[in-house]
Amino acid sequence: MARKKNSSAEVTGPRIRAAAQELFARHGYAAVSMRQIAAEVGVQAGALYLYTPDKQSLLFDMMRDHLAELLDTHAALPECADPMAALEQFTRFHIRFHNARSDSVFIAYMELRNLERANFTRIEAMRRSYEARLQEVLERGRAAGVFDVPDTKLAAFALIAMLTGVNTWFRETGRLSLSHVEDIYWDMVRKSVGG
Amino acid sequence: MARKKNSSAEVTGPRIRAAAQELFARHGYAAVSMRQIAAEVGVQAGALYLYTPDKQSLLFDMMRDHLAELLDTHAALPECADPMAALEQFTRFHIRFHNARSDSVFIAYMELRNLERANFTRIEAMRRSYEARLQEVLERGRAAGVFDVPDTKLAAFALIAMLTGVNTWFRETGRLSLSHVEDIYWDMVRKSVGG
Repeated sequence: MARKKNSSAEVTGPRIRAAAQELFARHGYAAVSMRQIAAEVGVQAGALYLYTPDKQSLLFDMMRDHLAELLDTHAALPECADPMAALEQFTRFHIRFHNARSDSVFIAYMELRNLERANFTRIEAMRRSYEARLQEVLERGRAAGVFDVPDTKLAAFALIAMLTGVNTWFRETGRLSLSHVEDIYWDMVRKSVGG
Repeated sequence: MARKKNSSAEVTGPRIRAAAQELFARHGYAAVSMRQIAAEVGVQAGALYLYTPDKQSLLFDMMRDHLAELLDTHAALPECADPMAALEQFTRFHIRFHNARSDSVFIAYMELRNLERANFTRIEAMRRSYEARLQEVLERGRAAGVFDVPDTKLAAFALIAMLTGVNTWFRETGRLSLSHVEDIYWDMVRKSVGG
């Protein structure tokens, strides 16, 4: 019996997640009900509760998994001893990772306001941990005399906002390839830190 | 009779606008009903319709007025013939204007998806017109040999995203004053365009 429940949850889980993500991105978390998510998946509302205790958990898990994937994928990149190479790697990685996940990125920013306090604290800690990696690169470059950055924390915030902004305008069908966009942004990032 | 209606709408209008803005920012446009807005203002739902034909108009007017104020305030700044001075002026203006209106900025980004097509087109045109002003400064600086910018359109997108990002982390009570933050961002902006 327990086994049947598990395997059913395993099959339906990713579909529930995908449906919730699309509905949250389109209408916003507060406007979407568990009933609507169930209807989108084609199951009874009750079936959702085999997968998740409530809508808040669904949102939190979505944001946590997005940030966990971000941190893990970034951590798996080759080590760059040279700060300039590390900054270029971060720049190109950030643009590509976020561009491929625009719904998750939109939700991760827009729905922070709908996280319960304890959940917000955990999500913020993950986000800070990602920002700290860029800050570490900037500090390394500053110590090596390669970068001229008066405040590495603010510079990390500024660069991440600039790079995530690609999501708001980039279209695959536009005049530029993503790789060309990366080149242009990398040129600005490098210069902005005096590199 | 018409006069009475008008004067009542004039008194209540700003309060309706303020209540709607706060509710949209907190819960999202799709999750907020006209009835909730009326309750927040302390009037009957019917009274809202003296002021606005529907919720979509309320959202559109809010975004249009935000962008109109942005364009007008920017246009009223002193002329800067020198491209470097013009870029610094834009940088400091953008940070201050947006930081003082975080709810409007949040709504203007997040609720684009909820604008009907004709409304979206008008809002996008206003936004493009603002971006074009920064692009014009960058082109002027490039023509004068002061800036090294391979793509002025992308550079304008990148800089605006970077500067608006201050809203996501800046707090009046934090370690830095807004004017110090402006200095740090201006240093990065100037360098990023090779200035």
